[in-house]
Amino acid sequence: MGISSLQAILSAFAEERDWAQFHTPKNLVMALSGEVGELAAEFQWLTSEQAAQVMEDPERAEAVRQELADVFSYLLRLADVLDVDLEEALRAKVAINETRYPADRARGNALKYTAHQRGT
Amino acid sequence: MGISSLQAILSAFAEERDWAQFHTPKNLVMALSGEVGELAAEFQWLTSEQAAQVMEDPERAEAVRQELADVFSYLLRLADVLDVDLEEALRAKVAINETRYPADRARGNALKYTAHQRGT
Amino acid sequence: MGISSLQAILSAFAEERDWAQFHTPKNLVMALSGEVGELAAEFQWLTSEQAAQVMEDPERAEAVRQELADVFSYLLRLADVLDVDLEEALRAKVAINETRYPADRARGNALKYTAHQRGT
Amino acid sequence: MGISSLQAILSAFAEERDWAQFHTPKNLVMALSGEVGELAAEFQWLTSEQAAQVMEDPERAEAVRQELADVFSYLLRLADVLDVDLEEALRAKVAINETRYPADRARGNALKYTAHQRGT
Repeated sequence: MGISSLQAILSAFAEERDWAQFHTPKNLVMALSGEVGELAAEFQWLTSEQAAQVMEDPERAEAVRQELADVFSYLLRLADVLDVDLEEALRAKVAINETRYPADRARGNALKYTAHQRGT
Repeated sequence: MGISSLQAILSAFAEERDWAQFHTPKNLVMALSGEVGELAAEFQWLTSEQAAQVMEDPERAEAVRQELADVFSYLLRLADVLDVDLEEALRAKVAINETRYPADRARGNALKYTAHQRGT
Repeated sequence: MGISSLQAILSAFAEERDWAQFHTPKNLVMALSGEVGELAAEFQWLTSEQAAQVMEDPERAEAVRQELADVFSYLLRLADVLDVDLEEALRAKVAINETRYPADRARGNALKYTAHQRGT
Repeated sequence: MGISSLQAILSAFAEERDWAQFHTPKNLVMALSGEVGELAAEFQWLTSEQAAQVMEDPERAEAVRQELADVFSYLLRLADVLDVDLEEALRAKVAINETRYPADRARGNALKYTAHQRGT
């Protein structure tokens, strides 16, 4: 099932509760910040090793899955409200990054990688 | 094209640059926070009215599309690294929310909606 | 009471619980993201008008005060761990911004303001 | 110099540029999210070891100081606009946490610590 079908489910969910009125771009961006914050809270005190194994603990795994779902749902809603095709936007950005960071020059280059991150 | 195909593109992009070593769960969560922060920066000084029309300005629209793509790409990478099926997780969360906020009781109820947000 | 005295209180609180081991820079940045996310959650569904009056509702006001305190406490801890003087850093940044945005040219200029935000 | 003096500097800076009109609670919360995102970006690809030594690299150290200053400045502005006394709020929250996590029971207990974080 594609992204637009998932957006249709979320849109119907909001409409049925008369919640679409709250789903303005600014509000959805704030909700997305909130959910990413909750996702960060699941990982913040874990060591790198504990974080790598977080899905082996059933309770933590369920919490992580739910937070990922919350982040995804607000991202889908926001793209829907802004009428942005997420898949197309992703492909376009990958094409930009292919040019910006040619594989042969960027290979294993953490500094270039960091510069990349600052530049996005 | 489905979510897993997009994840394959992103995974190949990282592998070709030897960047997969940086893509630990904690690092990806931080990168996701960073990109959501950049998305917030696109909207922070706009009024509600300006935010609703942001896609009518070509330069701002392009910036928003790129930030949405960046958020989506780190969410896809994180789910991939954690081996979480995003679509399945989203459907499971919607099912939970269907039970938690029955449409007939939640309708137009901002307070319930806020409580919902605190509870997630 | 100054900033360093507040940092001493928070440091002692962590030490007494043997929690200082968790307070690495990366972990504290994630905790800060988490708390800012919770703060965003308090405001996300409010209209501009409701947000401007949020402190008139005793329950919401208390929630906002606690979230502001949580954000402040992790910011203080992070600066302490990194040995950054927050007041000095703030004054230095204001000096940079005074040069970057001369008052006579920046006045009432939302575009310049937005550019300012993108540049920081 | 106390917190309110720093807030007075920031308030004057905004007034001189006619930018106070943009400093509504929702906008400032979004700006805070944006700056915390930029702070996260400074740390996201560093290992724990690299992050612990980040202040030894002059260029990175300066970037971190500026991001900390940006986060602090929006937190101060937000508290000012909401008329919240940050120091008082912090002390009140520490008092709550003293009761919630008695030192003798919370000592070295990461699980309790995580529960603490979820509960805040």
